[in-house]
Amino acid sequence: MPTQTTAPHAHASTLYLSAPEAVELVRRKGLAACLGGIADCITEDFLRWEQFDKSARVASYSRDGAIELMPIADDATYTFKYVNGHPRNTQLGLSTVMAFGVLADVATGAPQLLSELTLTTAMRTAAMSAVAAKALARPDSRVMAIIGNGAQSEFQALAFQHLLGITEVRLYDTDPAATAKLQANLHTSGLVVTVCASTAEAVRGADIVTTITADKARATIITAEMVEPGMHINAVGGDCPGKTELQAEVLTRGRVFVEYPPQTRIEGEIQQMPADFVVTELWQVLVGRQPGRRSDAEVTVFDSVGFALEDFSALRFMRAAALELGVGERIQLIPELADPKDLFGTLRQTTAPAMRLQAVA
Amino acid sequence: MPTQTTAPHAHASTLYLSAPEAVELVRRKGLAACLGGIADCITEDFLRWEQFDKSARVASYSRDGAIELMPIADDATYTFKYVNGHPRNTQLGLSTVMAFGVLADVATGAPQLLSELTLTTAMRTAAMSAVAAKALARPDSRVMAIIGNGAQSEFQALAFQHLLGITEVRLYDTDPAATAKLQANLHTSGLVVTVCASTAEAVRGADIVTTITADKARATIITAEMVEPGMHINAVGGDCPGKTELQAEVLTRGRVFVEYPPQTRIEGEIQQMPADFVVTELWQVLVGRQPGRRSDAEVTVFDSVGFALEDFSALRFMRAAALELGVGERIQLIPELADPKDLFGTLRQTTAPAMRLQAVA
Repeated sequence: MPTQTTAPHAHASTLYLSAPEAVELVRRKGLAACLGGIADCITEDFLRWEQFDKSARVASYSRDGAIELMPIADDATYTFKYVNGHPRNTQLGLSTVMAFGVLADVATGAPQLLSELTLTTAMRTAAMSAVAAKALARPDSRVMAIIGNGAQSEFQALAFQHLLGITEVRLYDTDPAATAKLQANLHTSGLVVTVCASTAEAVRGADIVTTITADKARATIITAEMVEPGMHINAVGGDCPGKTELQAEVLTRGRVFVEYPPQTRIEGEIQQMPADFVVTELWQVLVGRQPGRRSDAEVTVFDSVGFALEDFSALRFMRAAALELGVGERIQLIPELADPKDLFGTLRQTTAPAMRLQAVA
Repeated sequence: MPTQTTAPHAHASTLYLSAPEAVELVRRKGLAACLGGIADCITEDFLRWEQFDKSARVASYSRDGAIELMPIADDATYTFKYVNGHPRNTQLGLSTVMAFGVLADVATGAPQLLSELTLTTAMRTAAMSAVAAKALARPDSRVMAIIGNGAQSEFQALAFQHLLGITEVRLYDTDPAATAKLQANLHTSGLVVTVCASTAEAVRGADIVTTITADKARATIITAEMVEPGMHINAVGGDCPGKTELQAEVLTRGRVFVEYPPQTRIEGEIQQMPADFVVTELWQVLVGRQPGRRSDAEVTVFDSVGFALEDFSALRFMRAAALELGVGERIQLIPELADPKDLFGTLRQTTAPAMRLQAVA
């Protein structure tokens, strides 16, 4: 595809970053640099949390899954993400999670970037988990259990390696093929990789436990008896009504940290708890208004469901990287009008056979 | 651009219809045929109103305008539209309204069509107005006043000509250049076009009054004294909080018909009225549960704000037309994965220099 970073009509043309172009971008920058860059953008944006116009995502639930829109804006920039979650898709050769998003100019409404967000969502989810763990996990954490070894597991492993200093991962999935794939993908990472026979075995002695399963069901992947003093639980997979991964009792073993409570109470692990169940907002920890981990023995739980602000951060990272590297192309999603009050004029602007012009009028 | 209607990977590739391609599509089919086709789709979908998962649109308001997401779904198909409204954009050479949208498969969440919707919104808004007027205006209506002669006015004029049998339009806009543009664009239409010196002059004696101004303000374009027995008022321009076109008293002169009350009470003319102000849902008229016009003397008001279902209808029309004509191209908004559980694998699928692979791992 033609690579062009400046368009003849800068205002109405949109930079388009396809899935293959996003892959090219990540290859050229390096995955570790992208995870770190997105984590930095997330941190910056969480530190100015109050500047954003926030809302819970708009979900359309069906028998097989969910389709969601996740909008957010500050004074200058608006973004939204389209994302689905269909656990049975892999049987059809499709991803469980597919996503794309748009970054637009608040002052004019013009869409400036249309980007794939399937790969990007995996990176931003892992970056978000790492940002939270930096504030919540024990600083000497080295061993992470990964329960659920699907499409996002490599990104979690590498984000925790590069951003937290994790040196060993302990893997478990009900599907041994998924674990074998993760193990193979981490072969050259430098991580010590241990394949375990059960969740309990993987979790035992771990400093951090990441759950990232995809079943659309109330599940009790982690039970209270597995939880050890000082553990940080990074609960990523529970993200829609009826889909949880932690036994409710786990949530009473320590302090629970969330992104955006109005959304998490609907979608997160805490949907199992009363509406007044006490949680701490992660941004309050990052800005220093609330304590993160208070002792080496405390259990911390990051009940992550994925919030629109993280996609805002990821979209601005991807846009800057695409412009820096000259990746992506300009598309005409919006018409270029000689006279913006004359939309009808687009139907007769270029020369066309008289027959066609007649068909229009 | 390459024209290709079937993709090697039918599931994950998305048909993309750019703004120039939508223009090509409308030129080839003819605008009248497109307006009629979209009106037919809207009617079909309104007749099965209860099958849709509906919600008010999600708006983000800023100083200069609004950005909105409009999702809707039935059991098989999900659509959403992104649309802005920024009245001052024309000063920057940009359209007041810019839009695009996506049609997706509910069963998998895969986006099947990404389409421009700036031109398409103008067509669907006019088609919606015509569908409503067919049920509400006097059948012998021949003269329409058009107050506001901006980007959408030609589409309203031609929809009412082709779908209702309007033969004369009477134009007024505070900007004479807008009226001159509309008059010129309608030159070969066969409509009798009369330019008027005021709203009152344009409205006097008209069977149908269409208001389609863009000011983001409480306005009283149409006052109660202008309203004549038997008139149908097609109020299109009032579509966000604080933006109305009718004097409140106009709404008490006849019966008011709306698309989706929860949205119209926030955005429509009836935002001026108490929350229990009686309105009739248009779909109930179309299915025969509520009467439309009851006498030649009755005043009817269609308080149109634009509802997501109309975009659903327009997107399925544009998709069918694009596939029929072979317009549009396949894009990789979603990655094609050899193994859908191995998203990470996309980062090493194709051959690349060893240095790049190292940067990834």
